Amino acid sequence: MSKKELRIGMIGYGFMARTHSNGYRKVGNFFPELEHKPVLKTVCGRTKEKVEAFAEQWGYESAVTDWKEIVENDDIDAVDICTPNHLHAEIAIAAAEAGKMILCEKPLSRTVEEGQTMVDAVEKAGVQNTVWYNYRRIPAVTLAKQVVDSGKLGKIFHYRANFLQDWTINPELPQGGEALWRMDKKVAGSGVTGDLLAHCIDTAMWLNGGIKDVSAVTETFVKERLHQETNKVEKVGIDDACIFHCHFDNGSLGQFESTRYARGHKALYTFEINGENGSLRWDLHDLNRLEFFNYEDESEVRGWRSIHVTDGDQPYMDKWWVPGLSIGYEHSFIHQIADFLESLEKGKPCNPTFRDAQETQKVCEAILDSASSKSWKETGVEW
Amino acid sequence: MSKKELRIGMIGYGFMARTHSNGYRKVGNFFPELEHKPVLKTVCGRTKEKVEAFAEQWGYESAVTDWKEIVENDDIDAVDICTPNHLHAEIAIAAAEAGKMILCEKPLSRTVEEGQTMVDAVEKAGVQNTVWYNYRRIPAVTLAKQVVDSGKLGKIFHYRANFLQDWTINPELPQGGEALWRMDKKVAGSGVTGDLLAHCIDTAMWLNGGIKDVSAVTETFVKERLHQETNKVEKVGIDDACIFHCHFDNGSLGQFESTRYARGHKALYTFEINGENGSLRWDLHDLNRLEFFNYEDESEVRGWRSIHVTDGDQPYMDKWWVPGLSIGYEHSFIHQIADFLESLEKGKPCNPTFRDAQETQKVCEAILDSASSKSWKETGVEW
Amino acid sequence: MSKKELRIGMIGYGFMARTHSNGYRKVGNFFPELEHKPVLKTVCGRTKEKVEAFAEQWGYESAVTDWKEIVENDDIDAVDICTPNHLHAEIAIAAAEAGKMILCEKPLSRTVEEGQTMVDAVEKAGVQNTVWYNYRRIPAVTLAKQVVDSGKLGKIFHYRANFLQDWTINPELPQGGEALWRMDKKVAGSGVTGDLLAHCIDTAMWLNGGIKDVSAVTETFVKERLHQETNKVEKVGIDDACIFHCHFDNGSLGQFESTRYARGHKALYTFEINGENGSLRWDLHDLNRLEFFNYEDESEVRGWRSIHVTDGDQPYMDKWWVPGLSIGYEHSFIHQIADFLESLEKGKPCNPTFRDAQETQKVCEAILDSASSKSWKETGVEW
Amino acid sequence: MSKKELRIGMIGYGFMARTHSNGYRKVGNFFPELEHKPVLKTVCGRTKEKVEAFAEQWGYESAVTDWKEIVENDDIDAVDICTPNHLHAEIAIAAAEAGKMILCEKPLSRTVEEGQTMVDAVEKAGVQNTVWYNYRRIPAVTLAKQVVDSGKLGKIFHYRANFLQDWTINPELPQGGEALWRMDKKVAGSGVTGDLLAHCIDTAMWLNGGIKDVSAVTETFVKERLHQETNKVEKVGIDDACIFHCHFDNGSLGQFESTRYARGHKALYTFEINGENGSLRWDLHDLNRLEFFNYEDESEVRGWRSIHVTDGDQPYMDKWWVPGLSIGYEHSFIHQIADFLESLEKGKPCNPTFRDAQETQKVCEAILDSASSKSWKETGVEW
Repeated sequence: MSKKELRIGMIGYGFMARTHSNGYRKVGNFFPELEHKPVLKTVCGRTKEKVEAFAEQWGYESAVTDWKEIVENDDIDAVDICTPNHLHAEIAIAAAEAGKMILCEKPLSRTVEEGQTMVDAVEKAGVQNTVWYNYRRIPAVTLAKQVVDSGKLGKIFHYRANFLQDWTINPELPQGGEALWRMDKKVAGSGVTGDLLAHCIDTAMWLNGGIKDVSAVTETFVKERLHQETNKVEKVGIDDACIFHCHFDNGSLGQFESTRYARGHKALYTFEINGENGSLRWDLHDLNRLEFFNYEDESEVRGWRSIHVTDGDQPYMDKWWVPGLSIGYEHSFIHQIADFLESLEKGKPCNPTFRDAQETQKVCEAILDSASSKSWKETGVEW
Repeated sequence: MSKKELRIGMIGYGFMARTHSNGYRKVGNFFPELEHKPVLKTVCGRTKEKVEAFAEQWGYESAVTDWKEIVENDDIDAVDICTPNHLHAEIAIAAAEAGKMILCEKPLSRTVEEGQTMVDAVEKAGVQNTVWYNYRRIPAVTLAKQVVDSGKLGKIFHYRANFLQDWTINPELPQGGEALWRMDKKVAGSGVTGDLLAHCIDTAMWLNGGIKDVSAVTETFVKERLHQETNKVEKVGIDDACIFHCHFDNGSLGQFESTRYARGHKALYTFEINGENGSLRWDLHDLNRLEFFNYEDESEVRGWRSIHVTDGDQPYMDKWWVPGLSIGYEHSFIHQIADFLESLEKGKPCNPTFRDAQETQKVCEAILDSASSKSWKETGVEW
Repeated sequence: MSKKELRIGMIGYGFMARTHSNGYRKVGNFFPELEHKPVLKTVCGRTKEKVEAFAEQWGYESAVTDWKEIVENDDIDAVDICTPNHLHAEIAIAAAEAGKMILCEKPLSRTVEEGQTMVDAVEKAGVQNTVWYNYRRIPAVTLAKQVVDSGKLGKIFHYRANFLQDWTINPELPQGGEALWRMDKKVAGSGVTGDLLAHCIDTAMWLNGGIKDVSAVTETFVKERLHQETNKVEKVGIDDACIFHCHFDNGSLGQFESTRYARGHKALYTFEINGENGSLRWDLHDLNRLEFFNYEDESEVRGWRSIHVTDGDQPYMDKWWVPGLSIGYEHSFIHQIADFLESLEKGKPCNPTFRDAQETQKVCEAILDSASSKSWKETGVEW
Repeated sequence: MSKKELRIGMIGYGFMARTHSNGYRKVGNFFPELEHKPVLKTVCGRTKEKVEAFAEQWGYESAVTDWKEIVENDDIDAVDICTPNHLHAEIAIAAAEAGKMILCEKPLSRTVEEGQTMVDAVEKAGVQNTVWYNYRRIPAVTLAKQVVDSGKLGKIFHYRANFLQDWTINPELPQGGEALWRMDKKVAGSGVTGDLLAHCIDTAMWLNGGIKDVSAVTETFVKERLHQETNKVEKVGIDDACIFHCHFDNGSLGQFESTRYARGHKALYTFEINGENGSLRWDLHDLNRLEFFNYEDESEVRGWRSIHVTDGDQPYMDKWWVPGLSIGYEHSFIHQIADFLESLEKGKPCNPTFRDAQETQKVCEAILDSASSKSWKETGVEW
């Protein structure tokens, strides 16, 4: 079977570039029925030696240090944007104008305004586009979506999600530079709100619909840190922690929290949704499980079910091993690539698109506005 | 050994009157060293037959239907108030004026104003007083307090607590009357805020100090219910759900949620506190356990410790069975009685006093004000 | 309502005497509908001062040091035997001959031969009798029995149980004497086999029917310990650990293990039963929960249910608090007393009777024989 | 950097061939420092169409149907044996004689005798060899080994392991043929003993030393099944379930159980080791976690630690993502390949070798002998 090539230009060589590259390399082994196969064409990174080593390690045909060489390259079909956030818009717009498909890391942008230029660009150009909110494709999370869509939960009353980490507690940790751009507000746009809550918001709206208004608080616990680019101690601009509550369009209440100061939690992303007839819970630290409470069960033996989502009749799991055998974090990216490739075959969008991700930007911006003004803010989300 | 009698007058015969009565009856068996012993003198309840049956079942010497007969009875040393909330103030003030010790169910009152009259009354009278925030005396929670006080956690960044139930989802459930006064705003003062969040707030301030300001949202999912006293469908005045975030005086952020619409949770009271050097977690459904993350542990083998708090060197547990054998919910009341009796011996207050509980009232009222005005509110708490 | 008195003579004042005394004192508060009420008449113990203190603490009317004063006392209806094991037979036989009802601590006896004399005595005398295999009356365990009896599990393939402790690891711990008679073979009869496995076997046969044959291994890790009565270092005769597998009469396989050398486990009694259509699991450390896997559930959302057995429609739980609120270890004894009192009303046996408990003795003896002979042994159990 | 090629000939195209092929393809991306890189040369399978599809899917250069074409191919350096068990010996011996390195699926062989011919062959030929007991390389399991080797546990008293599945309960499931050879005794050699317990035994001896003697019971619950090759209902020769206890050389007791009839367990491999000063527990369903009880911890706050083994200072985890992000089952194979490649660089054996795996065969055979003779058997293991 001869496959259509999807020639990838990767911009960035950090953590996310690794997860995506791995996905492109593996998707064909596990989803052999797909018409398209990714080809790792070129990778771009700021430091020549490092980008060449990355190309060698991951099998890219070439390495460059100027992203325009990717955007302008006729042998590239799709641009994967894994740069720090401040470059997303410029690259995406150029790529769209050059007619490339775009797979952009989340968050879409630093601001709603910036995000809108990106949405406009891809929609004007009519190019296939998606944003890497990868957690949707963890099988247990996809199963949660199926359960919600089945109506089993009934009317929804509550949604809550946390994303707790602890890696920035040390005040000696610097900010900025290649390794720590997530702590530099100019580059990242925000702290945990764009980095972690954006994930929670994407999942939440996918499962439970639009978020209408928000009331938030943010905190920056360590006020000053050495900046690695200026080599001076500078004010920290990002939010170290952010908590908000909200109304969803469907009348349910939401409660969200994210922080990098929760000692003992490395990457504790959890969500729970409570409906009239049932509830669901999930936890990234044990990502193959979904918990489900079904009020329809006979009352004496009713309880939260711990579902090990590794059977062939559960989402994506017919592609992997045998029942009981776990998959990991990286598989969510492989699934998103498989879905992206399938979207090409079917001529459909691959969710979440830039337009979908822009709705998450609106919530993020409303959160930050709410926190700084100490007041409720409408999000303007249309879901 | 001849013990001093503490003659109890119990007002109320509901759920709480049962937990307290059980406590008075058991404390001597498990805390034999105490100087005082409770004597169940008189119980008061609104319905003659029921109160007499209660007296019979629990061994009270007599039963009455007018609480003044207890307050005015010279053979009673201490009044235990287990009535619906709207009667707390009147009874407590009368009891204080009559020179009785008072053990009052939580929440102290419906409002801050009402609570202040109670604090003033007991302090003016100089009578021993306490409020039944019983969760402080679950051994795992008391151990949490010891760990916090030891300084093991270091600077605190986060506190979060939930109290989730699901028993009012059915819209056919009525409000009001003897069984469902908790759903009648006139009687209860509020919904989950005074009933459930008050517990969370008491524990939180005990562990982490005063709450400075709050931003809250409340919701009443079922707007009208049949009222059992009027026999008419009436507007529901209470909050079915309440979420708030806050600043503590120590600079940490708080996040709280309570609801009676979280399908699958019967009484899920959980809290977590995150500090620089460690964290703690607790869950009422598995109340003998405390989870502790100690950052001082060697990094390769660091993890949340699941501590089964049933050993003789852990709080209160030398009084019970042998290591590994669980105690239950009711034991928290026995412990509070033991501490109350010990406070008499030592001539010290028994925490939380009315004054302490009044601080919780201030937070509750600030929450409800914040929710109705959609704005942040200072609590005025002095902890 | 005037109740019939059941006048109790308690022999022993150790750990078990405390759990039973507590049960007699509480049963009336929580099971008010029962016709009979226990009256704590006399307690017997070897040391005068201690037994008097015990009587004072628990409210016995008198204290004696010779158990015959209880057996021969016309004002006593029922004898509760909480002595070390070597006295069970002599006391029980005397009590039966005196026409007393008997509630005997487990294990029934040190040997099958000894046990048979006891069964014969109570059956000849026609007195009500029961043995304190209290774990049957933990609500989650009783619910397990109901699920098994309902047929929901289908044909059974496997049963497994562990009872793991760690309190005798220290080789400096002595043996014998009032506190450590469980480590003295002459007094206890055996080590973990009679002390811990007997519980597992009782539950197992109750849930899954008779055990047909066994193959066992035992170990004594610390070979010599100071004996507290002789004050000499003496050979340790008990089994520190015992593992066995077996066939049940229904064709299923059993696997059992008990030890006092499993560091980290205080009293980890767990069992699991696997049938064609479902499975059950339980763990004493979290005793309010039963886990249930129901193969009938829809496959995509099938999982082990974690049932918090605290609702009014679950066994015994209408007597206690409200859903979600835990009870503890001691409640199992209160339930057994309630069932014993009810058995008097109904004129029925109260399980497990001496005859039932004797079947457990047969399994224990077969285990020890198997271990010493290194061969399979038939148990001779008739269930 | 120019790498040395390790040209792989894969024999088999089933489940294990997939896990190994995936490993060969990924190892270079995640272990870029290794001198060697696997090249997928040829794959062999019984059905031409299927083997060609497999080659296409996984990127093998060619596909053959006669395994001798691989063994005799000068362009192949290493033979990976993923056939049903009955072919292991013949292929391995031929490959050794041809001077190939060999990576053989477990169990090594059907019998000790067969296994010995394999050990002799590779040792005589002096070729690098390893057996795919992959669970050793799950990071949490490797960490367990480090903790044991550190001496933190002290003297060991107990080891226990279970491997529970439920996929053969249905009596309509046939035996034999390409898909179900594991149920055909002639091909598989045994049932759960070789398939599942062999894993448990390998880990156990690696962690806790040699197993000295065993006492076992086996059961075949479904006595006859349709054979897919003969199309007749035939006697089932394999063990559906196997339980055994044993002595380790270090004096500790072992307890093991495996079955394919434990409803609700898909692949529940768990082990626990109890020492004087600490204990460890692991569970394949949640494979990124290791539980550790450290008796050295301060007593009031001592508890089982739940270690999420995803940090860079934990085994293999510097190669993957960031703390808190899970890896899965397949990674154990990638790690074994990385270690195999490293062993080539260092000129050392890659454990477990054929010789190591032969010791596991001895235990398996002793188990089956013990079960059929209903007596204890010495294993003859030299560890």
